[in-house]
Amino acid sequence: MTGTPTERASGVRPLEGITVVDLTQVLAGPFATMNLGDLGAEVIKIEAVGRGDRARGFGPVPEYYDTVNRNKRSVELDLKTERGQRVALDLLAEADVFVQSTKPGRIEEFGLDYASVREVNPDVVYCTITGFGEGSPYEDVPAWDMLVQAMSGIMSVTGTDETPPLWSGLASGDLAAGTYASQSVLAALYARERGDIDSEWIEVPMLDAAISWLSVRAGHTFGTGEPFPSLGTTHPSIAPFGVFECRDEAVVIAAGTPSLWREFCTALGREELLSDDRFDSIEARVENREAMRAELAATLEARSAGELVSTLQAAGVPAGPIHDTESVWADPHVRERGLRRRMAREGRPDAEVIDHPVHFSAVVPTLDRAPEALGESTEDVLAAHGYDEDEIEALREDDVIG
Amino acid sequence: MTGTPTERASGVRPLEGITVVDLTQVLAGPFATMNLGDLGAEVIKIEAVGRGDRARGFGPVPEYYDTVNRNKRSVELDLKTERGQRVALDLLAEADVFVQSTKPGRIEEFGLDYASVREVNPDVVYCTITGFGEGSPYEDVPAWDMLVQAMSGIMSVTGTDETPPLWSGLASGDLAAGTYASQSVLAALYARERGDIDSEWIEVPMLDAAISWLSVRAGHTFGTGEPFPSLGTTHPSIAPFGVFECRDEAVVIAAGTPSLWREFCTALGREELLSDDRFDSIEARVENREAMRAELAATLEARSAGELVSTLQAAGVPAGPIHDTESVWADPHVRERGLRRRMAREGRPDAEVIDHPVHFSAVVPTLDRAPEALGESTEDVLAAHGYDEDEIEALREDDVIG
Repeated sequence: MTGTPTERASGVRPLEGITVVDLTQVLAGPFATMNLGDLGAEVIKIEAVGRGDRARGFGPVPEYYDTVNRNKRSVELDLKTERGQRVALDLLAEADVFVQSTKPGRIEEFGLDYASVREVNPDVVYCTITGFGEGSPYEDVPAWDMLVQAMSGIMSVTGTDETPPLWSGLASGDLAAGTYASQSVLAALYARERGDIDSEWIEVPMLDAAISWLSVRAGHTFGTGEPFPSLGTTHPSIAPFGVFECRDEAVVIAAGTPSLWREFCTALGREELLSDDRFDSIEARVENREAMRAELAATLEARSAGELVSTLQAAGVPAGPIHDTESVWADPHVRERGLRRRMAREGRPDAEVIDHPVHFSAVVPTLDRAPEALGESTEDVLAAHGYDEDEIEALREDDVIG
Repeated sequence: MTGTPTERASGVRPLEGITVVDLTQVLAGPFATMNLGDLGAEVIKIEAVGRGDRARGFGPVPEYYDTVNRNKRSVELDLKTERGQRVALDLLAEADVFVQSTKPGRIEEFGLDYASVREVNPDVVYCTITGFGEGSPYEDVPAWDMLVQAMSGIMSVTGTDETPPLWSGLASGDLAAGTYASQSVLAALYARERGDIDSEWIEVPMLDAAISWLSVRAGHTFGTGEPFPSLGTTHPSIAPFGVFECRDEAVVIAAGTPSLWREFCTALGREELLSDDRFDSIEARVENREAMRAELAATLEARSAGELVSTLQAAGVPAGPIHDTESVWADPHVRERGLRRRMAREGRPDAEVIDHPVHFSAVVPTLDRAPEALGESTEDVLAAHGYDEDEIEALREDDVIG
């Protein structure tokens, strides 16, 4: 299979005809609604007049915003005004899904809480992304990703013996909340389509979502009573496994089973290690990890990273380069799949995005609409909801819309 | 809202009546099918006779397995035999979903590729989790999580200036593939329920899924042409933001906006810093980050972590403890939510699991079935699929089932 998931010629979009009103910003919510948009939903993103999603202003680059806001229509709307709230309810009345991540108390001020939205739309799937959630001792604490990483235990498993707990480089707290939100909305739409429910209210607390991702790391603690150690560049109970230096740069090798150890030694012409009793079981290899590294050093340093990876991969041994966020796009697999995509925009530079990663046969995900400028679709969306030119003009004069 | 999502008394399960056959192991696939099971699907997990999911044997603790395998029925089945394959097809004929993550070529050997399954089940949603996928230059390379973290760029953004690229402590590659798999299966079930498709084939390549999670980190590169730096314990463009030492231990503080900076200084009785021109904008605070840390050191070290966090949280400033995978369960929020749950098992110690993190109102996720012993449901499941006692006995005698 070559090419990107969104390049296929035909096929129905799984969320064709579904409309999502999106009142989220920065990352967690936008990632959730991007998933729904990729699957074919029309996403109407409400943004504050004159300012928009906070991520539009993040330094150093507006491209931050672009990576999670394709397939959305930007509507600039002042929800602090009663008229703006009425417009929002008009949009919500015809929508299927509402995803919002405003701070505690704010959505009630806007008159867009679940009860109010349900009055105009008895079938709505209403999804709130919170930091900690209603009733939490931290209910009013803003949940920044790093805070959630700290409080969930994610930082504690990241780092080395010699560092303090470190941030996981991914925005794991945001991603956990975002992916649970899109999954939960899909589950509710499915139940609604089957006629099992009319409407649904969903809350995804970011901290709880992040904690659920500990999964097997938590299992270590459930079994031993001990915290899972920070991972560094090696695995606590598998070897050879980790970062190894070649002549020019480091690579990752993960020869974590007896058969992979055999194939690893054979591919490197070091068969004599297979009969070395310091290395004759996984336990022995873990215990004598440093001796093994010393034995391997000359062999690895005689090769370039590229040579070593080719040799090991040809032998079916998991090994690969350590890409950064620039070099990853030059990887042959990534190039062939076309994962880095451009979306053309009139009068503005192309947006660069990462394609939807999942391949389907009957349905198709889509990259339809490039990330929009603030308020780019305000008029179109209002017109499609029955507002005439005069009404739109009046709203604009009073700064209710941008 | 208190208590866990799965403790609600009533409500329909969104995937009630849906059957998933699960031929996956370790983490990515089991995490996906756990999500589907939590949402109410019956998950039939096929495991190798006498061995089972590789994670059952992982040291140091079987609890690794338990954390991602509740709500599943374990069926021990030898797919290397023709009779075992016939049993699998009988299960698949009545299933809605098949999730599999066998290594390349293996599923064809088992006679359980998409074409074969579709012959017995024209409505199947068939989801394959691969490392790199069909046609990739790395097609035959086993995709261990650390390798995917290396090749996707995730490691490159994790660490500090003084460390090499480090593993993110979460199994991010596995989690990315697992969450895309469950989301994609839900999207396909929805399209099927609407009558838009009969059947669906899905492939989730783990590397591509992990790369899509770079999202905003990739945006930095798209905008600047530079790799995103490793994150360490500070934010490149926000301050004060990161890990700070108190009298007893470190905490995380994320006062990343002008108003949070005001509230932070006020809460600590350091209002004079608000008129200090070294700190009068985010840019200035980032540039004079070290001077700011020096100014704050005595104030922070005069307090315990608990005192500081309470003070800052009461002022609405994002701050919190850095939990490890043991201390996280003692956090008041986590305790109140009951996120760490026990599931009773006959004749075996309780399983410990993390509850489903998402709250719903109309539908309910479920924690119904504790993680099973290998083959615990073999007989029940076969009997439910029309096998009589003699047939089951014959299969067992020949080691086709466990």
